[in-house]
Amino acid sequence: MSKPNIALIGLGLIGSSLGHALKKNGLAAHISGYARSAETRARAMEIGFVDSVHETPQEAVIDADVVFFNTPLSVIKSLAEDIIPGLKDNAILTDVGSVKAGVLKELTPLLDGRIHFVPGHPIAGTEQSGPDAGFAELFEERWCILTPDENTSLIAVEEVSKLWRGMGSDVTFMDADHHDLVLAITSHLPHLIAYNIVGTAAQLENDTRSEVIKYSASGFRDFTRIASSDPIMWRDIFLSNKDAVLEMLGRFSEDLTALQAAIRRGDGRYLEDVFTRTRGIRDSIIEAGQDTDSPNFGRDK
Amino acid sequence: MSKPNIALIGLGLIGSSLGHALKKNGLAAHISGYARSAETRARAMEIGFVDSVHETPQEAVIDADVVFFNTPLSVIKSLAEDIIPGLKDNAILTDVGSVKAGVLKELTPLLDGRIHFVPGHPIAGTEQSGPDAGFAELFEERWCILTPDENTSLIAVEEVSKLWRGMGSDVTFMDADHHDLVLAITSHLPHLIAYNIVGTAAQLENDTRSEVIKYSASGFRDFTRIASSDPIMWRDIFLSNKDAVLEMLGRFSEDLTALQAAIRRGDGRYLEDVFTRTRGIRDSIIEAGQDTDSPNFGRDK
Repeated sequence: MSKPNIALIGLGLIGSSLGHALKKNGLAAHISGYARSAETRARAMEIGFVDSVHETPQEAVIDADVVFFNTPLSVIKSLAEDIIPGLKDNAILTDVGSVKAGVLKELTPLLDGRIHFVPGHPIAGTEQSGPDAGFAELFEERWCILTPDENTSLIAVEEVSKLWRGMGSDVTFMDADHHDLVLAITSHLPHLIAYNIVGTAAQLENDTRSEVIKYSASGFRDFTRIASSDPIMWRDIFLSNKDAVLEMLGRFSEDLTALQAAIRRGDGRYLEDVFTRTRGIRDSIIEAGQDTDSPNFGRDK
Repeated sequence: MSKPNIALIGLGLIGSSLGHALKKNGLAAHISGYARSAETRARAMEIGFVDSVHETPQEAVIDADVVFFNTPLSVIKSLAEDIIPGLKDNAILTDVGSVKAGVLKELTPLLDGRIHFVPGHPIAGTEQSGPDAGFAELFEERWCILTPDENTSLIAVEEVSKLWRGMGSDVTFMDADHHDLVLAITSHLPHLIAYNIVGTAAQLENDTRSEVIKYSASGFRDFTRIASSDPIMWRDIFLSNKDAVLEMLGRFSEDLTALQAAIRRGDGRYLEDVFTRTRGIRDSIIEAGQDTDSPNFGRDK
């Protein structure tokens, strides 16, 4: 395939970053865009990370070789149903969602042999949303996990891989169910916990709540950053990855109960052991190049 | 008082930052230092954030007008017992601990009328530890909460306030018990939760654990940063602020159970409501100047 025509369905943080990254690296012949909101479509053209915008997804994909779904998980199936009849032969659908087994199961029966689907998930993002949040470097040196199954066209997998590599990502492959289990602990549970503690604070009496905001630099503010991610996107993630999230949440709660008991009975040895063990994991993450060791609590001063 | 002689007991992140900040702002006539480890003492002299180091706390405080305890909470009482007899008349003790009621209760009976104690807590820090972690700007534009009680000398409070203001902090006052409740939710509970989720991940099967590290950029790595803070310091915080932490942990667990139930029954409306409410708190923190709105998940790219 020479340079493909690419359609971006959804023009938020990931959609806009895809547009910027595809353009920066010269990977697309044409980038068409669709977003539900007219305001977002207008803004996307203004910023210029798409070449054209369209009022319906059907119009956006007419000439597309590759279609990226960059929307909340709950609307992908119905979008796919809407666009598949009008797609060119051998067009490739792919997505960027944080849960993979569900979308694979939903889209597979819709494929009519003419159309391919390659489930994908770039491990990259920020806590911000919308068409202004994107930037071309978001995927550079970050993993992109593809979760094809035994029915997925290898040619389509290779085409999608090439695009991600072209945007600077390291492409890797995983079984969809296993992906969902790993992400439940690395991403979904951390977000749930962050949303929850910020929610607990939001319910405090007014006076205390304003002090919580005032003195948030002591740990809390880092949770609020995670908990400011897009609510609809995250609602859909928890609904779609229910079993794995409940499994990991069960383990988390058991461990938390043990810590609570140690605090209640004043067991300093137990606390120190747990707090020491967790340092090793941090070191491994820095060694693996997945974070810097700059002391960000000082906010990079 | 002209420029005071200052003794730093404990030369880790906070002790070294105090040394740097006092020197940068010309606030001390002489800075003496004590740390339990000979290596830390030597390193402190090498870096130069103290003017002298001493093998015992008693020697370090001989000429001191103001003594800062920058150690884990559990050793402050015995250090105070050791040094008080050798202190000059009207010397001021102060500390930087994250829990205030306990240390106030422990030290008050030790004061013999000659010596003053001003409990303090700078809301500043990083996830790093040791004498190399400190820097002069750590306290700038950050709150420092002092929690004197009705017996505390106002002159001593003013002297300690002057030092913190000189290092760039905004000084504020709070009742010790109320401080401990506010910090339980803004700082202690977030750290407990972070330590706990990292601990849960550390117990996963080997294969999955290495994938957790590899794909940690999706949320988890931010928790590992919080959970890499000093284990001994945090052990002491939880032991010292047991009641307030257990109270906030109880609320957190109740809220988490409600979220868990919503996921189990597929209640998207409930999830969306919780996730939307938490965004407002983030906005308030940024408005209050307690964090930047730069998208740090992209690690400031």
